[in-house]
Amino acid sequence: MSAGKRPARAAATKKVATKRASAKPAAKAPDRVKEFGEFRRRMNERILEHDNQVVRRFFALDTQTYKAGALDLKTKELLGLVASMVLRCDDCISYHIAQCRDAGVNRDEFFEAFSVGLVVGGSIVIPHLRRAVDFLDQIETAPA
Amino acid sequence: MSAGKRPARAAATKKVATKRASAKPAAKAPDRVKEFGEFRRRMNERILEHDNQVVRRFFALDTQTYKAGALDLKTKELLGLVASMVLRCDDCISYHIAQCRDAGVNRDEFFEAFSVGLVVGGSIVIPHLRRAVDFLDQIETAPA
Amino acid sequence: MSAGKRPARAAATKKVATKRASAKPAAKAPDRVKEFGEFRRRMNERILEHDNQVVRRFFALDTQTYKAGALDLKTKELLGLVASMVLRCDDCISYHIAQCRDAGVNRDEFFEAFSVGLVVGGSIVIPHLRRAVDFLDQIETAPA
Amino acid sequence: MSAGKRPARAAATKKVATKRASAKPAAKAPDRVKEFGEFRRRMNERILEHDNQVVRRFFALDTQTYKAGALDLKTKELLGLVASMVLRCDDCISYHIAQCRDAGVNRDEFFEAFSVGLVVGGSIVIPHLRRAVDFLDQIETAPA
Amino acid sequence: MSAGKRPARAAATKKVATKRASAKPAAKAPDRVKEFGEFRRRMNERILEHDNQVVRRFFALDTQTYKAGALDLKTKELLGLVASMVLRCDDCISYHIAQCRDAGVNRDEFFEAFSVGLVVGGSIVIPHLRRAVDFLDQIETAPA
Amino acid sequence: MSAGKRPARAAATKKVATKRASAKPAAKAPDRVKEFGEFRRRMNERILEHDNQVVRRFFALDTQTYKAGALDLKTKELLGLVASMVLRCDDCISYHIAQCRDAGVNRDEFFEAFSVGLVVGGSIVIPHLRRAVDFLDQIETAPA
Repeated sequence: MSAGKRPARAAATKKVATKRASAKPAAKAPDRVKEFGEFRRRMNERILEHDNQVVRRFFALDTQTYKAGALDLKTKELLGLVASMVLRCDDCISYHIAQCRDAGVNRDEFFEAFSVGLVVGGSIVIPHLRRAVDFLDQIETAPA
Repeated sequence: MSAGKRPARAAATKKVATKRASAKPAAKAPDRVKEFGEFRRRMNERILEHDNQVVRRFFALDTQTYKAGALDLKTKELLGLVASMVLRCDDCISYHIAQCRDAGVNRDEFFEAFSVGLVVGGSIVIPHLRRAVDFLDQIETAPA
Repeated sequence: MSAGKRPARAAATKKVATKRASAKPAAKAPDRVKEFGEFRRRMNERILEHDNQVVRRFFALDTQTYKAGALDLKTKELLGLVASMVLRCDDCISYHIAQCRDAGVNRDEFFEAFSVGLVVGGSIVIPHLRRAVDFLDQIETAPA
Repeated sequence: MSAGKRPARAAATKKVATKRASAKPAAKAPDRVKEFGEFRRRMNERILEHDNQVVRRFFALDTQTYKAGALDLKTKELLGLVASMVLRCDDCISYHIAQCRDAGVNRDEFFEAFSVGLVVGGSIVIPHLRRAVDFLDQIETAPA
Repeated sequence: MSAGKRPARAAATKKVATKRASAKPAAKAPDRVKEFGEFRRRMNERILEHDNQVVRRFFALDTQTYKAGALDLKTKELLGLVASMVLRCDDCISYHIAQCRDAGVNRDEFFEAFSVGLVVGGSIVIPHLRRAVDFLDQIETAPA
Repeated sequence: MSAGKRPARAAATKKVATKRASAKPAAKAPDRVKEFGEFRRRMNERILEHDNQVVRRFFALDTQTYKAGALDLKTKELLGLVASMVLRCDDCISYHIAQCRDAGVNRDEFFEAFSVGLVVGGSIVIPHLRRAVDFLDQIETAPA
């Protein structure tokens, strides 16, 4: 009996209960997603209104980094997502999940990107993976 | 007058006040511990119900890692705890504190493991140590 | 049109709206700052009351580290702040911001220190920078 | 005069000298690349010949992670490369550069992946970027 | 055909060749181990001869951390080893491997500690695991 | 007998022997310092000659970060040094040590900056501190 099979079966037997459980976060999901976006926007403004050229240029460079070039937008956002996962930055993960979704990344592709982050970064990534999947569930159930 | 003695004395003079202070978190402790466990369980199910074999195998491997072998369960959980501390992952720390406690780790042993994490990882570990001790206080006061 | 100029202009056009937005956190700011300080104090006591000499000595050494010597207090606190930023520890950042402010660090100096942390540590530092500026805003609006 | 233009010009004026300089490492390049591969192979065997199931399964899982699935091989190797860059692991970077090259990643694509790693991970990534480009130069000049 | 079985078999078929391969590093092993120890000793002296009380106290505290107490020496050294692995510090890993060996840790126990470091820290730990096993091989073949 | 006093005394008794020992690295020091500088220069050129605007801008921004402003050059280089120490990047540490020395940082100030890096980052910083002090010794004995 291989360890690899155990969680698959466990998941199968729990699927019904989970379906209901997973419906729960959707209730207050739009608020959490909205709140995250608002704090982000407000603080970016606070930071950029201060006259520090290095900080402003860094923010501009950060935006420029993900523009389509030799690599397309989707690939670049996936790179940003996995980099954020292995560095274990929840806000960065949430941000890139939203960007990836806009770029057309589907759930199977998300989980393959997650699997790279998990194997490269180790079990220490798991708590961030939980919040990543929770965030993904929330934006999928949020009204457009 | 060595620096090493100062905090010991400071702690001594504050002991009475602290006893009362430390009783406070117990009030809502079971809820926080319970909430942490529920989110953990729910999201693990969400993650494992998606058909990604690498992710599922990683979760199975993670469980297998702490099984008693050449090293006993208690030692392995302590290794997981200190690894989590120096990587500064609060959820992982909480999880391994609970596992260590089930494996019979007492408060003196916890603090010696904490001391290794603190010295190896530096003062940056202190905020996580605070939350670790807070969590330990909570599970110790929680009804079995 | 250089990327460096874009955020500056964006910030300029948003300045009026931001001024109002930035007044918001001040409302509940003293509470958050106070809450952070109280948890910190209470848990430090809990930690130091346990008879573990390595942990106690580490806490004493941590305090000793920032005493004025060949480098003055202000420089040392700035070193602590930037080290905390690149290691991405929010509590440590908040603590050193408060200490830096007491040592006379002004907003321009804070942003230059932030810029070093941002460039050395990368965009992964941005979420912590947001919370750092939010905390700085809060202690600046809090009654002495 | 923007900072963004300065390095571009500096690079331009130095191009001739650099062309010659960059030819240098190629001389002993195959040896270094070969040496790296041999140590890697030999130690993997040493590790896997020990009867530890968790370690063996982890190595197998690591291999499985980069198999084409919902995301193609090239994308997955790029994810592994950028994750390795921001975690600053030279051997992992070298390994994924070689894998990426086999998967058809060209020099422009490499530099865009590097740019994501650099901006996410910060200037601390620069020394690893230097060794990454050095390794890329070496495998490009090595006989097939 | 599970991925978990593949490396085990691969290792089995390569065992004979590896036995010879693994004998190689032993040739110059004592020198490398000796060189590491000498640089370590010389630089520790250089560091401690400078009159900086914080640095000196930190070094003393570091030594004190691994003294037997509620946890025995062997457990504490294993904690130091795994903490060093997940933080990916080769010198620290080598140091604790030597200390663990003196404390009686056998090869099976080493590999179980390695497995915790590998699963917690991820594939990024693998290059350090290679050097760890190489170092372990070297001190095992070095004359006492 | 406090642990804090032990290393101080140990250092005192070993001072004579160390003086001779510390003279050793100076022999081949200029070469190592020179080699480091040459690889750095050559690879920077290789990197900047590739037409990637994000990478070029990042390098320009990195240079701009340490220009004197609200904080003077010396303070900024010290910030860069301590950030590099806690992130454990040997090349970055060497670079900032050289820059700090040009900015007038003396040995006492270096050790106080090191002490902040050590306490914040933990014992995991020690191997990097050894190499930092070795590099400092080398540039101090190198002909101007």
